Amino acid sequence: MDNLKSESLKAHKKFKGKLSVVSKVPLKTKKDLSLYYTPGVAFPCKEIENNPKFAYEYTCKSNMIAVVTDGSAVLGLGNIGALAGLPLMEGKCVLFKIFGGIDAVPICLDTQDTDKIIEIVKAIAPSLGGINLEDISAPRCFEIEKVLSGCLDIPVFHDDQHGTAIVCLAGLINALKVVKKDFKKVAVVVNGAGAAGIAITKLLLKYGFKNISLVDSKGLIYEGRDDLNEDKNKISKVTNLKKSKGDLKDAIKEADVFVGVSKPNLLKASDVKLMNKDPVIFAMANPDPEIAPKEAKKGGAKIIATGRSDYPNQINNALIFPGFFKGLLKGRIGKITDEMKIAAAKALAAMVKNPTAEKIIPKIFDKGVADKIARAVMNG
Amino acid sequence: MDNLKSESLKAHKKFKGKLSVVSKVPLKTKKDLSLYYTPGVAFPCKEIENNPKFAYEYTCKSNMIAVVTDGSAVLGLGNIGALAGLPLMEGKCVLFKIFGGIDAVPICLDTQDTDKIIEIVKAIAPSLGGINLEDISAPRCFEIEKVLSGCLDIPVFHDDQHGTAIVCLAGLINALKVVKKDFKKVAVVVNGAGAAGIAITKLLLKYGFKNISLVDSKGLIYEGRDDLNEDKNKISKVTNLKKSKGDLKDAIKEADVFVGVSKPNLLKASDVKLMNKDPVIFAMANPDPEIAPKEAKKGGAKIIATGRSDYPNQINNALIFPGFFKGLLKGRIGKITDEMKIAAAKALAAMVKNPTAEKIIPKIFDKGVADKIARAVMNG
Repeated sequence: MDNLKSESLKAHKKFKGKLSVVSKVPLKTKKDLSLYYTPGVAFPCKEIENNPKFAYEYTCKSNMIAVVTDGSAVLGLGNIGALAGLPLMEGKCVLFKIFGGIDAVPICLDTQDTDKIIEIVKAIAPSLGGINLEDISAPRCFEIEKVLSGCLDIPVFHDDQHGTAIVCLAGLINALKVVKKDFKKVAVVVNGAGAAGIAITKLLLKYGFKNISLVDSKGLIYEGRDDLNEDKNKISKVTNLKKSKGDLKDAIKEADVFVGVSKPNLLKASDVKLMNKDPVIFAMANPDPEIAPKEAKKGGAKIIATGRSDYPNQINNALIFPGFFKGLLKGRIGKITDEMKIAAAKALAAMVKNPTAEKIIPKIFDKGVADKIARAVMNG
Repeated sequence: MDNLKSESLKAHKKFKGKLSVVSKVPLKTKKDLSLYYTPGVAFPCKEIENNPKFAYEYTCKSNMIAVVTDGSAVLGLGNIGALAGLPLMEGKCVLFKIFGGIDAVPICLDTQDTDKIIEIVKAIAPSLGGINLEDISAPRCFEIEKVLSGCLDIPVFHDDQHGTAIVCLAGLINALKVVKKDFKKVAVVVNGAGAAGIAITKLLLKYGFKNISLVDSKGLIYEGRDDLNEDKNKISKVTNLKKSKGDLKDAIKEADVFVGVSKPNLLKASDVKLMNKDPVIFAMANPDPEIAPKEAKKGGAKIIATGRSDYPNQINNALIFPGFFKGLLKGRIGKITDEMKIAAAKALAAMVKNPTAEKIIPKIFDKGVADKIARAVMNG
């Protein structure tokens, strides 16, 4: 890790950031200047004034999005603030470009006030084709996304929720094929009830999973638990239908699937042994999983997926967001639906022709991932 | 003009906007991904959390600015709104890149409320190295710039004011050399008391001009005129010291210099004949000047400058803003001073070794303009 640290700092310093804004048009002559600047630029301005839709023809709007953060929940680093989140936002923009061909700019907001964030994003929206919300802490992220999606005519996507949920669903579709279990019958435990955990639960339910239990730092979430916030309270009504109480250990007894979006090193082999036959473990905490793959295997795990690239089955949002936005932009889709998310998950899962325990999901550098997902979103 | 219209629309449509965001770093392998995205990206994030200054080392901040508009005073088009202003903002960003090597992103704000604009720009500032305010109408632009310059630690520059003022001063320095008049002694009439007119007047006074009169749509501005807003009232105390009244025609009687930042076709040859010997005419209204060069010449104008590239002596902000920001960013300058503006004007004027009536200012495509100005700003 020390080696990675010095290498990463050196590389970031060398390039002084990871993004550059360049001209798509030639600008070498007086004629060019008169076409793209004054006086010629007045004509597209006037066309757009008369009909705002022309912005999609004459400006970058059709392919330009903002990656917006308030720095309140950055990676595993927590609330490090807007500016400190910038290296990650730039990285995200790079991935949008390299995998999705999308022009993305980072917007790091020096406020963590929900209403102000909403107002600011509304105000900067005109010139953008979409908004990717990033690393904004729960529960504020839910309201911000809901309000913005309701009032803007461009898509608003909170990747920490939906990117994670989609890629997780894709992985689970194939994992359950490998262990030959029916998604309608498996018992799933989702550990971590933040933005990602709640979004995963909602999407799995929408897909048709029936038996999901959510666990937060206080233990199993059940209807009526008196310390639940609004979002946990809502989800408690459609999960853990037996209203079981207890801690994580109690929860994973006789579960088929463990989905972790929580903290490193929470589980041991002995815990995995408590699960049903052929346990499926998605231990997605970053940078270290809830249980190391070796330890999970010792407990009898049949399939192990993590967020890391140095183990098999990397469950990474980067498989989703470039293609998802590509589809939204190409299809000029204003509102995101659950159907689009499910279509994207199915498309990603379908890219692995014959899933095995070691290969349930495509790799990030596999060709065609973004295009397949884009098509699924457009048809979703 | 019809031809330019169809050519400009066609060209804008072909490229779908003029800007693209690209990666400066290679991203082809798992190793690249671990350096520039997770998990390696966490290291620069942490460094910046500990010391915000590291943002200049590890992110794009050191070379990234925003071109911010509310679309309230776009070119000669007026209040066409944020989205319709986007083609011009993109053009501006292209010029920043091509002439100054600066990464610039357009931010078009869907609000024209002064306080909200201030709040939004403050909130998006962390990841930026500078703010270029653009096409925001007077008098709001004055307050927005003043408040933001006061509270942000990155430079805030309203190009319509200062870019125009600096390039105009540069042109006048050389024009007065050609007609062999002393700037301390000439009578200058500035027609148009909006953002540009007031900024030009202030900078000329700061440079050492003594005798300036401002004219707005109601005529000469004099101390005590009862319809003056705050900014005009302030400027009335240091201009038109004889407190003359009257219209534009009265104003330019016995003036040496006419500076127009107003409307097309306000002056005739007969008006120019009322001026002192060897009149200097800067007719900078866009797209058509206050008086056509041919007509001005008929009236005896010795030097004629306009905002257009199809006449000699194009007084264009594009000569200033790329180099000015390049200097601000390279010098990591937080606050802009009048001395920097004057240094930039002098540097630009000095690039014309032997000024003549037909050549008082460099051309936009002349080599080295931005670098010379950048150096002047850093030493200013």
